[in-house]
Amino acid sequence: MEKNIVQQGKQSLSFYQPPGILSSASVVGKKEGEGPLGNMFDVVGEDPMFGCDSWEDAESTLQKEAFTLAIGKSDIEKWQLRYVFAGDLLGQEMASCFGLADMQIPLFGVYGACSTAGESLSLAAMAVASGAADYVMALTSSHFASAEKQFRFPLAYGNQRPPSSTWTVTGSGAFVVGKDKGIAKITGITTGKIVDYGVTDSMNMGACMAPAACDTIYQNFMDFSCDEQQYDKIITGDLGDVGYEILIELMKDKGFDISQKLLDCGRLIYDKETQGTNAGGSGCGCSATVLSALILQKIKDKKWNKVLFVPTGALLSPVSHNEGLSVPGIAHGVVLESC
Amino acid sequence: MEKNIVQQGKQSLSFYQPPGILSSASVVGKKEGEGPLGNMFDVVGEDPMFGCDSWEDAESTLQKEAFTLAIGKSDIEKWQLRYVFAGDLLGQEMASCFGLADMQIPLFGVYGACSTAGESLSLAAMAVASGAADYVMALTSSHFASAEKQFRFPLAYGNQRPPSSTWTVTGSGAFVVGKDKGIAKITGITTGKIVDYGVTDSMNMGACMAPAACDTIYQNFMDFSCDEQQYDKIITGDLGDVGYEILIELMKDKGFDISQKLLDCGRLIYDKETQGTNAGGSGCGCSATVLSALILQKIKDKKWNKVLFVPTGALLSPVSHNEGLSVPGIAHGVVLESC
Repeated sequence: MEKNIVQQGKQSLSFYQPPGILSSASVVGKKEGEGPLGNMFDVVGEDPMFGCDSWEDAESTLQKEAFTLAIGKSDIEKWQLRYVFAGDLLGQEMASCFGLADMQIPLFGVYGACSTAGESLSLAAMAVASGAADYVMALTSSHFASAEKQFRFPLAYGNQRPPSSTWTVTGSGAFVVGKDKGIAKITGITTGKIVDYGVTDSMNMGACMAPAACDTIYQNFMDFSCDEQQYDKIITGDLGDVGYEILIELMKDKGFDISQKLLDCGRLIYDKETQGTNAGGSGCGCSATVLSALILQKIKDKKWNKVLFVPTGALLSPVSHNEGLSVPGIAHGVVLESC
Repeated sequence: MEKNIVQQGKQSLSFYQPPGILSSASVVGKKEGEGPLGNMFDVVGEDPMFGCDSWEDAESTLQKEAFTLAIGKSDIEKWQLRYVFAGDLLGQEMASCFGLADMQIPLFGVYGACSTAGESLSLAAMAVASGAADYVMALTSSHFASAEKQFRFPLAYGNQRPPSSTWTVTGSGAFVVGKDKGIAKITGITTGKIVDYGVTDSMNMGACMAPAACDTIYQNFMDFSCDEQQYDKIITGDLGDVGYEILIELMKDKGFDISQKLLDCGRLIYDKETQGTNAGGSGCGCSATVLSALILQKIKDKKWNKVLFVPTGALLSPVSHNEGLSVPGIAHGVVLESC
């Protein structure tokens, strides 16, 4: 038997027999449902509380629904899942801890801020490619109201939002990863380092995360001896308009023009002219729901054959912000190919 | 080549060529240094701030020091580490995010509350056993003052502490896991599920976590078709006196008497008669530092040849507590054997 996991360069792995994404699901809120991708999501909830009594419980419910839908769309049963790799933005991963308790599946809690979709898919792919599991779930969520409460101001305060600010997506994306042929295959990963350019503005997370995205994309090119020509699309998580422009410039400084290949989930999910979302969408749920609803569909339809998916995270906490610290970034790359 | 990772039963893995713990380090605070294991830790800091301006920064410094010491005690260089698996108790993993930024190594942030030492060692062992990495670091920390500030009351308030309460350990444990022969080998893991018995008392975390420990230990016995006789010791993370007794009873209900084998890191680290720590120690740093200072030493010296190490986590957050929710538990088992 040939070795299935191959170390590529300093930060990447490739999979000889690539794990498949067997099914996925996206559950979003009303605002996301009114955006340009609205009719592509599996479920659009009209009630921001999702029938619950708290924002956190609403976010847990998003996870439960996405989990259940993804299993329902796959050919496997829940009990066949060996692990769940899940995380969210809340302190102590509250949405995941309470959302997944009933599932009764071994849990690896992960945290990479808004890059969590990339981290959980990376670990899920490693687990399947290594034979540690036949089927696993990668899952993440965010909720506008629970995130604002956690990181910024009470909603009722109605604070002003600068043009560089982003809007946390209410949504959860769930992915069944397994050894079978799926709607897409994960052929490689590039795991990110923490990158800190010293930006302290929590209302400009695109600027905090762009250097991390650049670092991971550049490292992916180096590790796989390739460039942007290798990919149909390079799709970051939630840089928004500001981070998007910065990333293009940073990559130009390194000798690569990715401007014709680059998309950003945060720029795709809302119509900023009519939805008042400023620089775009953000949150774990942003890249996860856009991956499920749009990217995987394009790959399944062979419109895109090879995509570098790079969820981006701002390692911000209420305490670090109040202490005046910078917002370090991290980005995890996942190479997705059509089957 | 034989497959190196073997699925055992529902929740466990065994490793055909077991990854080794090549080196470890423990850095603790003054109180831990005055306890029964005081002279076994690598570094005892006299200053609870560790020369920093905030409790969170102090905890980051603990991680940096443990990381650096563990690398120094190994035969590898820092650049040979392919991944760091790290986490802590603070919201958005603040201690890890700021402690590890300078290391410039690909990071998988993990969250399992106080079970994080078990989760990070499990993923580290999987990464090495699968060939995804030759060398990785598993790292975790907690700090009494940053945890009290995060979860309970301001220190200056001087709240009363019921007998069931535990004392968060100020400490960090770091472990270099690799493909070489080490001071101990990781021959298997049993990954825990969330277990929620509905306990809502954040001052009695032992009671919250004991059912999860029971679930993981019982599942380990089932998956490996063994019982407590298989192990020289079964060592939980931070159940303390209350959870320890509950766990023995819960296991008796399942037909196993582990009372002669069971130790708990939280009961080992302090002298409760003289140190005022009530039910014992707790926190990610509790099991991690006791593993490094005591358990690995005993295994290295062949006093103990096979240990089931079961860090336990209470999935508590300040928000979930304020909302009156229960405290679900989780526990991750790691089978350690002498080389």
